[in-house]
Amino acid sequence: MTVPQWIDTLDTPYLLIDEAILKRNIVHLKNRVESLGGHLRPHLKTLRTLEAADYLLADKTRPATVSTLAEAEAYANAGYTDLLYAVGIAPAKLERVAQLRKRGINLHILLDNMAQAKAVSDFAQKHQQDFSVFIEIDSDDHRGGIKPEAPELIDIAQQLGRHFTGLMTHAGGSYGCNTADALKAFAKRECDAVRSAKSRLEASNIHCSITSVGSTPTAHYGEDFSDITEVRAGVYTTFDLVMKNIGVCDFSDIAMSVVTTIIGHNKEKGWVLTDSGWMALSRDRGTAGQSKDFGYGQVCRQDGSVLTELCVNSTSQEHGVIELTEAYQPEDFPVGSQLRILPNHACATAAMHPLYHILMSDGSHNTWQRIMGW
Amino acid sequence: MTVPQWIDTLDTPYLLIDEAILKRNIVHLKNRVESLGGHLRPHLKTLRTLEAADYLLADKTRPATVSTLAEAEAYANAGYTDLLYAVGIAPAKLERVAQLRKRGINLHILLDNMAQAKAVSDFAQKHQQDFSVFIEIDSDDHRGGIKPEAPELIDIAQQLGRHFTGLMTHAGGSYGCNTADALKAFAKRECDAVRSAKSRLEASNIHCSITSVGSTPTAHYGEDFSDITEVRAGVYTTFDLVMKNIGVCDFSDIAMSVVTTIIGHNKEKGWVLTDSGWMALSRDRGTAGQSKDFGYGQVCRQDGSVLTELCVNSTSQEHGVIELTEAYQPEDFPVGSQLRILPNHACATAAMHPLYHILMSDGSHNTWQRIMGW
Repeated sequence: MTVPQWIDTLDTPYLLIDEAILKRNIVHLKNRVESLGGHLRPHLKTLRTLEAADYLLADKTRPATVSTLAEAEAYANAGYTDLLYAVGIAPAKLERVAQLRKRGINLHILLDNMAQAKAVSDFAQKHQQDFSVFIEIDSDDHRGGIKPEAPELIDIAQQLGRHFTGLMTHAGGSYGCNTADALKAFAKRECDAVRSAKSRLEASNIHCSITSVGSTPTAHYGEDFSDITEVRAGVYTTFDLVMKNIGVCDFSDIAMSVVTTIIGHNKEKGWVLTDSGWMALSRDRGTAGQSKDFGYGQVCRQDGSVLTELCVNSTSQEHGVIELTEAYQPEDFPVGSQLRILPNHACATAAMHPLYHILMSDGSHNTWQRIMGW
Repeated sequence: MTVPQWIDTLDTPYLLIDEAILKRNIVHLKNRVESLGGHLRPHLKTLRTLEAADYLLADKTRPATVSTLAEAEAYANAGYTDLLYAVGIAPAKLERVAQLRKRGINLHILLDNMAQAKAVSDFAQKHQQDFSVFIEIDSDDHRGGIKPEAPELIDIAQQLGRHFTGLMTHAGGSYGCNTADALKAFAKRECDAVRSAKSRLEASNIHCSITSVGSTPTAHYGEDFSDITEVRAGVYTTFDLVMKNIGVCDFSDIAMSVVTTIIGHNKEKGWVLTDSGWMALSRDRGTAGQSKDFGYGQVCRQDGSVLTELCVNSTSQEHGVIELTEAYQPEDFPVGSQLRILPNHACATAAMHPLYHILMSDGSHNTWQRIMGW
């Protein structure tokens, strides 16, 4: 690959997004899910920029997912109108939710217990405010939600009354899979969990208008989205090394890297020192428990070609250490030259960068600003 | 401790700094080092705010340390004039260094190899620019620097000529200690390394005007700073759980916490779910290899009292999971109530927050803005 000259001239470390790969990843999953009759509600949490939303959503009325109210407010200000805040609602946050809904934003919230449901219905009554609430279903024992067969499902939905909209599950546990068969089974489990919960609601005459499932692995392996309104996925936008280990992508599908400069060597130890520590790469060690441990990231040449078996082995705040294998000599890595590091976990690495640099398909340079905070 | 009412009313998660503890930590180390005849060059990288610098430095001409040029520029704009950028210099960054020096900022840079030294002297000659350069000495085999006895020490200093200022070492390896004796020995090793390198330079008639040592553990355990110009330390400002494990502080000295709201339970598993995931706490698992593993942070009540044996056991982007021990019941943690989480690594947790909330000694509320980027 030819590297445009501007890539050399920016101060390192910086986050680089390859627009051509980003676009390809987005189109691929959209086509896949739509060919199965499904629809995406992309999660915007990986990049948290207005520009990325533009690639992910055909227009501003299309459904999207966010992980904080700060994102919901920023996307609402930019004209997006259908947003799911996919973290269990804290009662104190209902005021901010109400403010957005009063502005005509269809901001959906999530909950999984009666205390939250009562807080919602109390607030709604007191302030004459409509809400749209998803109940979280636990399909894999990994975090929040209630089981599809839990008795309180019906009670919570009844407590919510007209504020109840739908059912949502997230198979975060699918990150533990690494075969196609296991991923297919996990995707089925996700769908079956909400289908089964929906049947129970219907048997109690409670209408459920949306069923929402998804994670990047299950969205790429699900085979049957019938009776599923929407599929959520986020990190597929750029992919990362965790997703490569799971088997969802290859190195060449990873659209995010951190550009770094070599600042020294420890020849005795065979180390190359760089100016990218955990402040630029993040502390995420998501590949540590996987089939291949990439340390703090896979090392590539500046043109993106992968340097086999080289990763960032350790980091401090602003230093990275690459331990050379026998195939390499310190002289192959002159002081002042640049490398690119592929991230373990794109969401975590992006979170360290208030500004991203974009390599556009035509070789030109763009910048995107991250939406910060909560 | 009484909690001021404003603490309840802010949206969680947010970073809270206790000013009274911060002040006490700062005064304690200053008095300690000065009583031994030493002087501090505090590292500003933990909080990266103008306000914290105000507490750490008696006036704006006092020496300070930074970890990025973005910090150097921000502190220079605020009037600070003596700054050490303590990461090996990348040749492409010399232009930004020169811009600051032209403005009268005594920005010192760091290097450990001939390629960097040549880049500095070439730039200096080409642009008629003075630099002030520290050579990094490796006192503990943990990262960068050259050994005090390395032949190239003299060559590098000679290559730098009039740009050479001093010697610097950082005993990052001291983080592996957890007894007073080991820490005292590490502090001595740091000082001895630069003393020995300085003697070699003097034997070659090279004047070394500054010797700089330090890390938070060694600054708190060093017993003899004779012939040492300055002692650097950073994380002692707020301390954290890693420092507690090393034995440098106790829970009550930790001035930083993340305030979080309980959003649900998994009663079957004995889990409490919160709205603070790794986005608020950071992915840092620095206590994982230490005597006590605090997961993603120690759980405290909202008034700061420590809940023995409770930590955040797992996180996803915006969720934290606290696994209850037998001493606690889910009912002790009602949905909507708040907790405080003490950080494993204050530098990493602060890095996740563009804005900090400050509990002032008089109970009032303040905010500090973080200097972002590189």
